[in-house]
Amino acid sequence: MTVLDGRSLARQIRARVATEAEALKRAAGVTPCLAAVLVGDDPASALYVRNKERECGRAGLTSRVLRLSRETTWDALRAELDRLGEDDAVHGILVQQPLPPQIPVDAVVTHTDPRKDVDGLHPLSGGLLLRGAPGFVPCTPLGVMALLRHYEIPLRGRRAVVVGRSALVGKPLALLLLAADATVTLCHSRTPDLGAVTREADIVCVAAGRAGLLTPDMVRPGAVVVDVGINRVDDHLVGDVAPGVAEVAGALSPVPGGIGPLTIAMLLANTLQAARRLTQGGDGPV
Amino acid sequence: MTVLDGRSLARQIRARVATEAEALKRAAGVTPCLAAVLVGDDPASALYVRNKERECGRAGLTSRVLRLSRETTWDALRAELDRLGEDDAVHGILVQQPLPPQIPVDAVVTHTDPRKDVDGLHPLSGGLLLRGAPGFVPCTPLGVMALLRHYEIPLRGRRAVVVGRSALVGKPLALLLLAADATVTLCHSRTPDLGAVTREADIVCVAAGRAGLLTPDMVRPGAVVVDVGINRVDDHLVGDVAPGVAEVAGALSPVPGGIGPLTIAMLLANTLQAARRLTQGGDGPV
Repeated sequence: MTVLDGRSLARQIRARVATEAEALKRAAGVTPCLAAVLVGDDPASALYVRNKERECGRAGLTSRVLRLSRETTWDALRAELDRLGEDDAVHGILVQQPLPPQIPVDAVVTHTDPRKDVDGLHPLSGGLLLRGAPGFVPCTPLGVMALLRHYEIPLRGRRAVVVGRSALVGKPLALLLLAADATVTLCHSRTPDLGAVTREADIVCVAAGRAGLLTPDMVRPGAVVVDVGINRVDDHLVGDVAPGVAEVAGALSPVPGGIGPLTIAMLLANTLQAARRLTQGGDGPV
Repeated sequence: MTVLDGRSLARQIRARVATEAEALKRAAGVTPCLAAVLVGDDPASALYVRNKERECGRAGLTSRVLRLSRETTWDALRAELDRLGEDDAVHGILVQQPLPPQIPVDAVVTHTDPRKDVDGLHPLSGGLLLRGAPGFVPCTPLGVMALLRHYEIPLRGRRAVVVGRSALVGKPLALLLLAADATVTLCHSRTPDLGAVTREADIVCVAAGRAGLLTPDMVRPGAVVVDVGINRVDDHLVGDVAPGVAEVAGALSPVPGGIGPLTIAMLLANTLQAARRLTQGGDGPV
């Protein structure tokens, strides 16, 4: 069984981002900059934002954190988003969720400058993905695709099953697998016999947020299993894949050390892309 | 075998649109208006636009056709799109395709006012669909859903297979079926054994644009088959479904008389929605 090592790939992606960011600096005098907006004092959110700052630093990107009080009004946050959209030194904008109840999440997403939408959450980004046009793709499904590509998992003409239909992971991942010429099935909580569907799959991606959802009997021997779940059980992290699956699958991404590290790596890659598009008007490697 | 009669349903939808348009006129003094832009003198396009004008008239909507010469520049067309976007008397904007080679189709789509995007082609509309938020959905997949709903075909927990992955039909249809709680599989030209996938389906929707693609052996007895194909063979219209399928399927939408008439009916419904959103800020029945 091949372990799909996301941690090691994330380091490689970060190194490539660092090289490309350095090249952009030499060519255009621009250092990609990610601005994170943190509203309130949720300790988990503060930790996530610190991790993103640290990873930016490691890849030679700059980062900026805008800390706003828990009482911030939507009007005030909107004004800050406008400022960040207009600020030429900022290339990526990320509003850390969850947000306090007075802030309308959908409006935040729609109000983030789509040219700087490195989380890929703006409806315009989603629409470009649906059309197969260049745009920002959410970091987690991008990370899944990077992992499959890195391990040279064939996708064309293969059957891929995605469990979970969120707008952030399941649906964009299905579209990416489809663009890679897989035949794609989307399952969810209303799928009556989940195992009957997942057993047909050459590649199973589980992003349902339910610990142990995918059991060994639900996996065809030799299939590739990507575990996108992150669940806290008895104070440690587990995925959506039950332990015994490792004995059946041909390849498996672990939790932790699989998709998690790739999500932040793809955020760096998206910030680099945003900086390139804003300064040079085009895309490039990474 | 039940014939899924799109022509009869289209008439019912048109009548409902007419009633609701009349109500909007009484309540807000507004008659929904569709503006069609026709560039060049392609006879098929001219015919499509005339059909749309006629259907608008039958439903009590007004329509306007902007006829531009084949030599129209993108700058000139863009200026017209801006004018239509700003014109409060216009609620829906439709640019008839195909367009002459000097016109960038993607730019036309992106430049159409998304509040008036009754064809559901703007990336913003696609992104809202992906998020499950209210927005404009392309008329053909809307027509498929209207037909399934009208005949009370159960979707929740059922397996639906969509053949064809276009941004206009296959992908939005898959998202709509998913939102209706079906387990959805998307197949396409790279699916090696199409029959093996379609035989799993309770509902098969074929939108591949290949006459006779779905043969009787590819359909589970009793399955619901929706034929979205429109192909001209020996001067008459046929769908993507081979004739013998009628003997196997439990229900089948014919070509002609199935999805075709519904596509125009949903354009009327979208124009009514646009007028309501622009004048009253909300949605309503139909």
